[in-house]
Amino acid sequence: MNHRTAVVLLSGGMDSAVCASIAQNEGFTLYVLHVGYGQRTSKKERECAEELASFYDALDFRVIPLDFLKEIGESGLTDESITLPVEETEGIPPSYVPFRNSIILSLATAWAEVVGAEAIFYGANFIDFSGYPDCRPQYFEAFQKLIEAGTKDDTVIVLRTPLASLSKADIVKKGLELGTPFESTWSCYTENEKACGVCDSCRLRLKGFRENGVTDPISYR
Amino acid sequence: MNHRTAVVLLSGGMDSAVCASIAQNEGFTLYVLHVGYGQRTSKKERECAEELASFYDALDFRVIPLDFLKEIGESGLTDESITLPVEETEGIPPSYVPFRNSIILSLATAWAEVVGAEAIFYGANFIDFSGYPDCRPQYFEAFQKLIEAGTKDDTVIVLRTPLASLSKADIVKKGLELGTPFESTWSCYTENEKACGVCDSCRLRLKGFRENGVTDPISYR
Repeated sequence: MNHRTAVVLLSGGMDSAVCASIAQNEGFTLYVLHVGYGQRTSKKERECAEELASFYDALDFRVIPLDFLKEIGESGLTDESITLPVEETEGIPPSYVPFRNSIILSLATAWAEVVGAEAIFYGANFIDFSGYPDCRPQYFEAFQKLIEAGTKDDTVIVLRTPLASLSKADIVKKGLELGTPFESTWSCYTENEKACGVCDSCRLRLKGFRENGVTDPISYR
Repeated sequence: MNHRTAVVLLSGGMDSAVCASIAQNEGFTLYVLHVGYGQRTSKKERECAEELASFYDALDFRVIPLDFLKEIGESGLTDESITLPVEETEGIPPSYVPFRNSIILSLATAWAEVVGAEAIFYGANFIDFSGYPDCRPQYFEAFQKLIEAGTKDDTVIVLRTPLASLSKADIVKKGLELGTPFESTWSCYTENEKACGVCDSCRLRLKGFRENGVTDPISYR
């Protein structure tokens, strides 16, 4: 049987789950890659990613621990001494982990080349985005060129970011249409049991559900 | 005091050491990054990298373990069931680890952005190179564009590959001129005590010394 396969990056967040639904809906069989980088909510996110991999009937599920980013990084996601904002901020937020997307996408590309996957699906978004330089469209175009320059000549891997230009409300809508199991996703930057509801990520998520007139199925404090 | 700083990738190999000598000779103070990826000779290479970091009086020395590449990869460097060639081969050799340079350079870029380093020095080489797609000049140009697209607007990091167009003999010559401590470097793909002398990497190294009329200071079987 000839599968069309794709490597899907599943952080355990809502966007990555909707992205996986889109890939599956296009007929791809999924290889699921979860990258943990020692963030405050890594255990919860990993559990969600594993549930989602099972939901999407993935061919394989791999977890790559990048806890050393804690040492390198200066990020509020990994460094508990940095206070994360509970209001909208201008510019690059303290949740920024330098060049993180390149590390993650390089790992995905390596795996895609080995298993012969023809696409990488990544749920990055730059509409509701919080000012991360490595979420800009020109960044993903540059990464596509890097794939072409750095893989074997007969390797063709297309980097897909289908959520790139969607608002959070559009992402929720898409997930509702495709049956994304939102109950198995996690967005909160700080909490592991009940979401805080006030961090950047919670606020965007809640707004997305509210604009669809739908209740988010996860628990909030 | 205002240092010009650079992140230098020190594998422990001869080329990376000469590359560090070049960076230091240009006036850079060094941050040394060593990436281990579970290859057969990782312990030996790490020891060499540590000795070299000390020799170059590095501001900081970090080791990043990427042992999970063993799981993802299909490479003779990490998979002991694959036999490495002892003669020159055409095309991409079994020592190829898919997209490895992107993973390593992404980590270096992340660290460079955090510490404010203005350059990354990487001892990659494509003259004596063994057919790795991610050692080609167009690959490194693509990575430079990725750095520009994916870091903060006020970050300027230049990717330097000063050995790119040098033959192994030229690299040895450069190292001899700059006082590179070749005795603290390791090139063999398979052995940890005495170099095998027959793998691709040993043969290129020995040829480089021979063409300079100099004896390699490390021990061979």
